[in-house]
Amino acid sequence: MDFQQVIMRLNEFWAEHGCLLWQPYNVQVGAGTMNPATALRVLGPEPWNVAYVEPCVRPDDGRYGDNPNRWQQFYQYQVILKPDPGNPQELFLDSLRALGIDTSAHDVRFVEDNWESPALGDWGLGWEVWLDGQEITQFTYFQQAGGLELDPVSVEITYGLERIAMVLQGVDGFPDIRWDGDVTYGDVHLRGEIEHCTYNFEVADVDNLRGMYDLCEAEARHALDRGLVLPAHDYVLKCSHIFNVLDARGAVGVTERARYFGRMRKLAREVAELYVKQREELGFPLRNKFSVPMPRVEPLPSPIQREGRDTFDLLLEIGSEELPVGDVDRGLEQLHQRMSEGLAEARLNYEDLRVVGTPRRLVAYVRGLTAHQRELERVIKGPPSRVAYDEAGNPTRAAVGFARSRGVGLSQLSTRSIDGKDYVVAVSKDEGRDASVVLAEMLPRVLRGLYFPLSMRWNASGVSYSRPLRWLVALLDDVVLPLEYAGVRSGRRSRGIRTLNAPELPIGQASDYFRIMEGANIMLDTADREASILRQAQALAAEVKGEVPEDPELLRELANLVEYPLAIRGSFEEQYLRLPEKVLLAVMRKHQRYLPVVRAGKLLPHFVAVGNGQTLDVDAVRRGNEEVLRARYADAAYFYREDTQKPLEAYTPRLATLTFQEQLGSVLDKVKRLEGLVPGLCQMLDVSSDQRVVASRSASLCKSDLVTKLVVELTSLQGEMGGHYAELAGESAEVAQAIAEHYLPRFVSDRLPQGMAGVVVGLADRIDTLVGLFAVGIRPSGGADPWGLRRAALGLIQLLVGKDVSLDVPRVLSLAGRGLPVEAGEELLGEVFDYIKRRYRGWLLDSGLRYDMVDAVLAERAHDPALANRTLQAFAPWTQLDDWDELLDSYARCVRITRDLHTVYPVDETRFVEPITHDLYETYRLVAARVRAHPTIDTLLRGIVELKPFVTEFFDRVLVMSEDVDLRQNRLGLLQAIGALPRGIVDLTVMEGF
Amino acid sequence: MDFQQVIMRLNEFWAEHGCLLWQPYNVQVGAGTMNPATALRVLGPEPWNVAYVEPCVRPDDGRYGDNPNRWQQFYQYQVILKPDPGNPQELFLDSLRALGIDTSAHDVRFVEDNWESPALGDWGLGWEVWLDGQEITQFTYFQQAGGLELDPVSVEITYGLERIAMVLQGVDGFPDIRWDGDVTYGDVHLRGEIEHCTYNFEVADVDNLRGMYDLCEAEARHALDRGLVLPAHDYVLKCSHIFNVLDARGAVGVTERARYFGRMRKLAREVAELYVKQREELGFPLRNKFSVPMPRVEPLPSPIQREGRDTFDLLLEIGSEELPVGDVDRGLEQLHQRMSEGLAEARLNYEDLRVVGTPRRLVAYVRGLTAHQRELERVIKGPPSRVAYDEAGNPTRAAVGFARSRGVGLSQLSTRSIDGKDYVVAVSKDEGRDASVVLAEMLPRVLRGLYFPLSMRWNASGVSYSRPLRWLVALLDDVVLPLEYAGVRSGRRSRGIRTLNAPELPIGQASDYFRIMEGANIMLDTADREASILRQAQALAAEVKGEVPEDPELLRELANLVEYPLAIRGSFEEQYLRLPEKVLLAVMRKHQRYLPVVRAGKLLPHFVAVGNGQTLDVDAVRRGNEEVLRARYADAAYFYREDTQKPLEAYTPRLATLTFQEQLGSVLDKVKRLEGLVPGLCQMLDVSSDQRVVASRSASLCKSDLVTKLVVELTSLQGEMGGHYAELAGESAEVAQAIAEHYLPRFVSDRLPQGMAGVVVGLADRIDTLVGLFAVGIRPSGGADPWGLRRAALGLIQLLVGKDVSLDVPRVLSLAGRGLPVEAGEELLGEVFDYIKRRYRGWLLDSGLRYDMVDAVLAERAHDPALANRTLQAFAPWTQLDDWDELLDSYARCVRITRDLHTVYPVDETRFVEPITHDLYETYRLVAARVRAHPTIDTLLRGIVELKPFVTEFFDRVLVMSEDVDLRQNRLGLLQAIGALPRGIVDLTVMEGF
Repeated sequence: MDFQQVIMRLNEFWAEHGCLLWQPYNVQVGAGTMNPATALRVLGPEPWNVAYVEPCVRPDDGRYGDNPNRWQQFYQYQVILKPDPGNPQELFLDSLRALGIDTSAHDVRFVEDNWESPALGDWGLGWEVWLDGQEITQFTYFQQAGGLELDPVSVEITYGLERIAMVLQGVDGFPDIRWDGDVTYGDVHLRGEIEHCTYNFEVADVDNLRGMYDLCEAEARHALDRGLVLPAHDYVLKCSHIFNVLDARGAVGVTERARYFGRMRKLAREVAELYVKQREELGFPLRNKFSVPMPRVEPLPSPIQREGRDTFDLLLEIGSEELPVGDVDRGLEQLHQRMSEGLAEARLNYEDLRVVGTPRRLVAYVRGLTAHQRELERVIKGPPSRVAYDEAGNPTRAAVGFARSRGVGLSQLSTRSIDGKDYVVAVSKDEGRDASVVLAEMLPRVLRGLYFPLSMRWNASGVSYSRPLRWLVALLDDVVLPLEYAGVRSGRRSRGIRTLNAPELPIGQASDYFRIMEGANIMLDTADREASILRQAQALAAEVKGEVPEDPELLRELANLVEYPLAIRGSFEEQYLRLPEKVLLAVMRKHQRYLPVVRAGKLLPHFVAVGNGQTLDVDAVRRGNEEVLRARYADAAYFYREDTQKPLEAYTPRLATLTFQEQLGSVLDKVKRLEGLVPGLCQMLDVSSDQRVVASRSASLCKSDLVTKLVVELTSLQGEMGGHYAELAGESAEVAQAIAEHYLPRFVSDRLPQGMAGVVVGLADRIDTLVGLFAVGIRPSGGADPWGLRRAALGLIQLLVGKDVSLDVPRVLSLAGRGLPVEAGEELLGEVFDYIKRRYRGWLLDSGLRYDMVDAVLAERAHDPALANRTLQAFAPWTQLDDWDELLDSYARCVRITRDLHTVYPVDETRFVEPITHDLYETYRLVAARVRAHPTIDTLLRGIVELKPFVTEFFDRVLVMSEDVDLRQNRLGLLQAIGALPRGIVDLTVMEGF
Repeated sequence: MDFQQVIMRLNEFWAEHGCLLWQPYNVQVGAGTMNPATALRVLGPEPWNVAYVEPCVRPDDGRYGDNPNRWQQFYQYQVILKPDPGNPQELFLDSLRALGIDTSAHDVRFVEDNWESPALGDWGLGWEVWLDGQEITQFTYFQQAGGLELDPVSVEITYGLERIAMVLQGVDGFPDIRWDGDVTYGDVHLRGEIEHCTYNFEVADVDNLRGMYDLCEAEARHALDRGLVLPAHDYVLKCSHIFNVLDARGAVGVTERARYFGRMRKLAREVAELYVKQREELGFPLRNKFSVPMPRVEPLPSPIQREGRDTFDLLLEIGSEELPVGDVDRGLEQLHQRMSEGLAEARLNYEDLRVVGTPRRLVAYVRGLTAHQRELERVIKGPPSRVAYDEAGNPTRAAVGFARSRGVGLSQLSTRSIDGKDYVVAVSKDEGRDASVVLAEMLPRVLRGLYFPLSMRWNASGVSYSRPLRWLVALLDDVVLPLEYAGVRSGRRSRGIRTLNAPELPIGQASDYFRIMEGANIMLDTADREASILRQAQALAAEVKGEVPEDPELLRELANLVEYPLAIRGSFEEQYLRLPEKVLLAVMRKHQRYLPVVRAGKLLPHFVAVGNGQTLDVDAVRRGNEEVLRARYADAAYFYREDTQKPLEAYTPRLATLTFQEQLGSVLDKVKRLEGLVPGLCQMLDVSSDQRVVASRSASLCKSDLVTKLVVELTSLQGEMGGHYAELAGESAEVAQAIAEHYLPRFVSDRLPQGMAGVVVGLADRIDTLVGLFAVGIRPSGGADPWGLRRAALGLIQLLVGKDVSLDVPRVLSLAGRGLPVEAGEELLGEVFDYIKRRYRGWLLDSGLRYDMVDAVLAERAHDPALANRTLQAFAPWTQLDDWDELLDSYARCVRITRDLHTVYPVDETRFVEPITHDLYETYRLVAARVRAHPTIDTLLRGIVELKPFVTEFFDRVLVMSEDVDLRQNRLGLLQAIGALPRGIVDLTVMEGF
């Protein structure tokens, strides 16, 4: 099918399905979404079904036509269904079939992909649709546009026309797509692609474009001021395109980007608001112009259940559009919990609750559920018996009153002994209701109780769920349990796997369910799917004498992407093995979720992809996936080639174009600060002079990879690529390593740098970030950490503790403060230190340490986290001793009596009276000397143990608070001295039991 | 059929016919032509067939949605066929049928419309296609694009989608077009239309847009410098759109417009040249990607003719696509001439030659053509007989050599007497060839001899003709005469009228032709068609008690627009009669070529349109035409309403925005100059003081209508509308008349102003134009008259002569020169006067006057054209006198003898010797006194008549050149005095025969 026929076929299909056919916009846009037929029409209450082609321009994606399927211009086919017709995925799959794609042979997948346009203030949830691993469509439920909440929600389907044509024609890249007859896509577009890339990357005049941006913005403003929606929108689009060219040209720093986005968003919001207002003034004229699904009106039937059975099996299947992988797990966990809680509260006994699921269904199966609730006796305490009955045993007015107030007859009162006294009580018995009735009330609560971090609305019910909920099976044995949730009514029809075109699967009775699902090629249990994937993958790897390395996280993800895993081995060209392995792996894992195949730890030119369903055409799916990987690797190879044209240090000057923070300057400025900070830090850390040289060089180069193309594309490779490029450029192995490692640890469980230089640069980087950002007034707030302050503080701690490196944190903060372009005074530095301390405390508590120990140690040693950590490690066993409390108490006695004194009294041993005082003092002196020499917690606590018998005897024999002032003060002075022993090590006074 | 279905149907149609389906461009364009799929692809040798929708933006056409079918945005459907497939009109008509349009019931017409895009340097010839009077399509053969000659020529078909949808749906305006289902065009576009109009006309910030223009131009330049075609093209398009908005905003004066056009054209040319170069470097890769018609290869058969017949009838029918009305007449005239000349040269006798034709065919019919050429004897002169033969009568070597050199035998030599001498001659007899053979050679020459002022190429033959020549019928009785011209071979198949879908009409023998044509509903003779139209139109007018005023020019045009006229009366709403009649008539005549219907000189709300063919659905055609006129009148009414919001003088200040010429300032500046010039001019012309007031006021207002909307739209109404608006604004009738008339005469045969004020303002206007433009260095060049200098000079002459107003032109030029903002010195003023004089001379010669008379009078009286004219009128009869030559000679004798003298000798009558000298002198004195008193040519020539006998006698008796110096000089002085008599009246020395 020729490219133009694909468009004609889609036009026919969507026109038949009630869509208005629209035209591409006559302003350059990055996506069909920006066409007012989407951007504006999705706003407000009016229905709107539309379909159109959109040539999209994304300057940054240009590769001079070198990459077979990554071009700066390409064609989208955009469909908007507003409101959700209830079956948009099925319509979409029908459209693929209308194009001749056999959806049972090809691996069509809905992979979570949430969408956000920072420029326009839009977002939505949905998927990218994969066809044999190739992303062919974006499918989104719009939640917000132009900064406005959408009601109704629009379904947006965005086909990548080239990708689809490539699949249909079996060609390998854009240029070979047949457009019509002999004319190819390359014939009509390749030259222009190269030219536009040249213009965008090399020619566009930055000042001119900035000028155009400003003028377009000004005109948008004029139009808005006159209430003109479309002229304003046009100019916003022009701003957006100009920005994109500037960006591709490399002319936009981070802060500047944020500012541009802010400017565009502001305009876009005003446009959106103005549009809605205008439509309202016009009386929403499109309201009755499209047919929209009508809500159900018949009432829900009453629940019934088979009579004469003691127990039932309950099946609840929540069918939905594909859940994101994380939400499958989340949903299952919550469903299990809500069901058990619900059944317990509902007083329904059962033998067994099983919760399993796939991306398309969450299933709770309750075996042996009692037909009826457990009986419940409720006892209400009344007046004491002696008050309620007279001596003749007749009820008094009190009893009568109580019975009346509780609505029971006098005969229903009885007497119970409560807390050793007799009371009149009213006992009511709740005999319970049929399970069906109870469940009909309970299950909607269970459904409502399922919560997802990112959830969405899609229809008039206003219900939120991870993705649209499309069917509910609720069976009590063979009887449907009537439920309604999110506009969906329960029934007995489940749906099959997509690969078999999701046939309806009627469930005769609950107990048939698992058999039917198995027969329908659906593997319900995630663990089964994981095991199956692993087994298949290893077998496929073994065929090429390789193996698949363990990767439980990816395995889980893969298992939750399918209902029935089919592993397929593919290959890629050996030439790509010349790329760094980390690049190959990052691409495989991040973009495609392929399992790599290795032999003796080295990557082989193979991979294992996991498809959905048994009926797939393995060759077709393999070919598709190989094609995708090939294109991705071609892209990576292109970047790599470009990047390695110059040595790493040649990139450093361009860091000036990346803004770190407006007041703190560019990333290059930051690098300069690191270069200044590193020598001082090395000195504090007593780093060897060899390592100092390494650290300084690493500091100069550590950020340079941020402007290399590969890192711009795959940010996760930052540092690693820097190290690699450093090595290629002839830097020493140690420098390369330090560059690669200085971002470590990136998260709590991450590994740490191996070399000291990496540690030093990593510390310097984080310290500069913390002090700098605090100094310009940025503070962490709530859960968000947009500036990475939390991450920086934690990383700092992890480095110091993990590498057991002592560092006086306040001192280094002060040193860093002096290098900043802004003022960082004492108070501010104190604030930063405090923040680090709090993070450290949180981290320690998370690790399971007792809070009192943590507080006790941090009170004295927070300035040196490594030392604090060592202290805590040594401290822990002490607190587990049987006589810890006594030991602590012994010390506490010394402190308690002196705590409120405002004076420290000198000790004059010549004036001691009692021998025990002498002994105590002598012991104290020995202990104090040892602690001074070795200020460890062990020395300290051993000393306290030593002192303990003397302390006991001292307090037994000596009245500290003598009336003789001198005597008293001398004794108090001794106790003060003992109390001061832990100073600098630990503050025992905050320990529990003190 | 819904709007979107129209597009789908056209897509299907053109895809089936080998067109690549393309998409609208993502830059705002004014026409689908600007999409690179046309603008660039038509360049160079590669074939290209493409079809696409294009939303077009023409800010100036916006009417805030008030006009039902004139919007600033609308949709074109654009088709490019490159090269010409040979039947593009038929394909186009098929496409209309594919849309369900019955082309035999509807009046589909191809009306000359040549196309030019000054912005891009493109032009082409073609038609607008009318459907029942409504323009639905532009059909153009591109001759040039981006300033480059096109080879091959592309056929461009540009459908107006809204117009077609309106016809198909039977709705009255854009807003009511059904787009899809219940959704109308108005639903999706009306609001945006209003907004864009508001932005373009009221909001757009002129400085910002100028800034954008400059930036886009700069970027186009950058792109061009790097050889980037498409990025440059995009920016050119952006420039063009920005310019259009500026223009709609009223911010572009005339000169500025020219400058903007120049800038855009320069860029567009560079883009075009770069594109062609690039394609060449790529090796023209599309060359084999489209199927193109292959040239015929079989050789042309030899001509034959029936044997045994003495005479034949010859039919030559030249079938073509619709010729412009003027070219029908031109073609017929030339065909007649070339045929008669050709047949005469070819020595073919015939009884009768008839040449007739329609827009689709030019026909020459020769009755009684001899079957054979007339015999021709050719005689070649050899040596004299006496040299060729010896005395014995035997041929000498000379004879032998002559015979050999001429390739004849000695026996074929004979002797002829030539100029009284005998020579040997070789006589060859050309007995003539068969008519068929001769015609086969001659007729292509006849075809090549047809010339049209605007002619075009369309196919590989490279032949130029008015429009593509598509068939040739050439019959000699019943035998086809083989011809090939412009890639077409002759045959016997003619084609019928379009209204009957142009069936093939086989012509059995030549003599059947006229009968067949009549039967096929084709009226071959223009005069017949004219008569028929007039008869029908008057009958239709009579039905509403009206009549159709005489308008031979329009009648001729109408007759040449059809092959069979069908007059149809339509009506328009009476409300429009409130508009000025001149507006109603201008619209009817200019745009629609309708005949107005009047009663007692007043317009009725009816019109007569003329359709093509008998089979039309009269009601449908009427409705269509009425609809068109309604829309046009709505537009005119809109303008008129807008214009009459303010009095005419309120428009005057806006003339400052219309640049007259850069150095000469705005039109307002010109008006100020006219105000300055008029009083002086009045004085010179001795105008009454009443008229002076009128003239001054008229001068102030004469240009103000140029910025009214109606005149901007219908330029032909300039002046007339000004007068009308002046009257509405309460100006005096005389002022209004002067404003209305000051442009008169607009062409050679045009009428002159009635009032003196109109004459004065008209003179002032033209004088200012001439002196001003010359002063800034503008000169007329070649045939072009872009600044209207020729028109101004001729108008000036026509006014002075026509109104017989004496004016000292050099003096008034000098007065005008003093008012200019630039220097206008003596030399320059002389140059201007000289130019006017040359124009006057040309005009006089054109009027049939003898050049010597003209030169003689102009030599003395050019400064006052009216005087010169009177002189010429009086002079003419003299030159026709039998004894004119003698009279002239008598005067000439006096001049000839004194001509070379460098001194003028005084005459001393006391020293005269001979009586005749005395007599001559006395007569001279009397004559000279009369001439001085009445310096007319009559007085002068009567004087010369009187002098003649004395002059004769004087020369008979007196030897002028006496040896006595004093005597001689005295005689010469007398003759000099006589010679000087004509001075200031005429220079008789330049007369023929002098």
